[in-house]
Amino acid sequence: MQLSDTETSPADGLLRISKPYLLFLGDITDPLDAKTAFGLRDWCREDCIGELRLPHCRVTTGLPSLAPAEAYRRGARSLVIGVASFGGRVPVQWIPTLREALEAGLDLVSGMHTRLAHIETLRAAAQRHGRALHDVRHFGLPIPVATGTRRSGMRVLTVGTDCALGKKYTALAISAELKRRGVSVTFRATGQTGILIAGAGVAVDAVAADFIAGAAELLTPAAAPDHWYVIEGQGSILHPSYGGVSLGLLHGSQPDAFIACHDPRRSTIAGMEEFPIGSIEELIDLTIRLGRLTNPRIQCVGISLNTSAMNAMNREAVLDEYEQRIGLPAFDPMATRIDRVVDRLLRLYPSVAS
Amino acid sequence: MQLSDTETSPADGLLRISKPYLLFLGDITDPLDAKTAFGLRDWCREDCIGELRLPHCRVTTGLPSLAPAEAYRRGARSLVIGVASFGGRVPVQWIPTLREALEAGLDLVSGMHTRLAHIETLRAAAQRHGRALHDVRHFGLPIPVATGTRRSGMRVLTVGTDCALGKKYTALAISAELKRRGVSVTFRATGQTGILIAGAGVAVDAVAADFIAGAAELLTPAAAPDHWYVIEGQGSILHPSYGGVSLGLLHGSQPDAFIACHDPRRSTIAGMEEFPIGSIEELIDLTIRLGRLTNPRIQCVGISLNTSAMNAMNREAVLDEYEQRIGLPAFDPMATRIDRVVDRLLRLYPSVAS
Repeated sequence: MQLSDTETSPADGLLRISKPYLLFLGDITDPLDAKTAFGLRDWCREDCIGELRLPHCRVTTGLPSLAPAEAYRRGARSLVIGVASFGGRVPVQWIPTLREALEAGLDLVSGMHTRLAHIETLRAAAQRHGRALHDVRHFGLPIPVATGTRRSGMRVLTVGTDCALGKKYTALAISAELKRRGVSVTFRATGQTGILIAGAGVAVDAVAADFIAGAAELLTPAAAPDHWYVIEGQGSILHPSYGGVSLGLLHGSQPDAFIACHDPRRSTIAGMEEFPIGSIEELIDLTIRLGRLTNPRIQCVGISLNTSAMNAMNREAVLDEYEQRIGLPAFDPMATRIDRVVDRLLRLYPSVAS
Repeated sequence: MQLSDTETSPADGLLRISKPYLLFLGDITDPLDAKTAFGLRDWCREDCIGELRLPHCRVTTGLPSLAPAEAYRRGARSLVIGVASFGGRVPVQWIPTLREALEAGLDLVSGMHTRLAHIETLRAAAQRHGRALHDVRHFGLPIPVATGTRRSGMRVLTVGTDCALGKKYTALAISAELKRRGVSVTFRATGQTGILIAGAGVAVDAVAADFIAGAAELLTPAAAPDHWYVIEGQGSILHPSYGGVSLGLLHGSQPDAFIACHDPRRSTIAGMEEFPIGSIEELIDLTIRLGRLTNPRIQCVGISLNTSAMNAMNREAVLDEYEQRIGLPAFDPMATRIDRVVDRLLRLYPSVAS
């Protein structure tokens, strides 16, 4: 699937990442930590040559396992660190393999907080072999403080009750369906995987805290009245670590509509067992209450459920239950059609219906 | 007034700012932009030798106006940029004067987002004259992602309906009164002025967005059960530009108690006339609802009103009106006694009453 950015993007000219990719999984054991690798496999499969795992890694994308030199021979031009580590730092045990990739002729692409160029071994190896180090989390241009001023064009944001439960996939699926119907639409990436897929964006969790909302404004500038921005959400306003990121993104996006994303199997915040996950009703209510500040007509248009571990019968039952309870179309962007939520979006804002 | 930090601070060893200060006001025309200068004058007057203003400046601290060389002769050792510019960058027209200060023997101290050392003229002049450039907004050590885990000790946070209406002054006044009563207490600074006053702290609006709550956790680690941290709030959850900072600080601080700060004369967010200011009731309700995530027993203990432009009769009337309406003690930390709110705090948490 192609989701290239047809408009002038604030990131234009900054990201020149060479494809195709070799996806590096490090030594992770929890599939939730491989969001980036899975996202690239699912949304730009044709750009992914294979995967590279360290001995203790227990996660796989199912792509061919390739050493750096072999991946290069098959056409790969960048090794993408396809995993997130807690705190966003590159573990030392990854460094020899990353250096090997540079020696094999691959650029390195990272979405971690640590800059690759700040790791001396990698900086030196990249220089020696003429390779590039790309930190997609670090935006190269100044970001303004948000003004809150209303901008033309339409905006839909995905929000969630937790991290890593489908906000990006939901935004990509809505973008693709709007595009299929001939609506003028841009997917706006706010995290590293989305940026790698779309080739543009700002990693809002990495900007200085004062500029979160400003980054969201920069990402979705004034547009034609019938143009839709579909904005990838981050974190959750109900998350003890990342609530601030989510609120800044909500304020700066000033969405007309949002989609509430939830994983019905999850009872606690991922990785934080003392925190029960918030209800989708609480998420919707608080999002409207807080989002009204910058867009008084904000409303929820649909429920995106992550039903990846359910069989078809359970999936239908769960989707029905949420749909009845909340009174909005429920769908799983990876498993069901999304017609009804897009129908609803275009019916609520008829000027943009094609 | 002395508010030195008696405990091990996460910023220990990082800030070695030479006092006394010469306060630089640039060419600002709005007193709201001089928060840092006024804060230093009011809370560490004995460390402030004088002020330095550019020709078009229309704000004064009332301190003697001194050129850099004269200030140095009178004992000053650092020029502090005592103003905030929109976006946190150093205007080019300030640079010749800042260079002159370095040449006169003063260090430079800045709370802006731009690092002084990134301004080539200043970097070169500092090196040439053996002077230091201090960026108090930039914390020198890695900040962890917040865990949300409950920590021992007591915490009170100041929150507000807008920026620049008394959150820092309120926190300083509460700290001073608790200290006067013999309670074990630490003032925790979260912005540049507070850091200059206390000599320690983290400027939470400058950390990467993912780490806002983590910074607040770092600032207020586990302490003795009867120890109080009084935490300076930032921005407002009802502010279109800075809501994310405020929510992260709320989550990370996990306050037992908070004080709601408000300016009764202000009808719109400062500098953003299209945004009506939120009500104090809305602020209290949302703060409790959002803050419950990391501290289920969070409650509001008092109302801090900025009545600086009122005469004594109006002040009393306004304080009475809010006190009746909200049902909590109302005070102005710059104009009235704060006994009743501190009484209330200690009565609600009797284990810490001295």
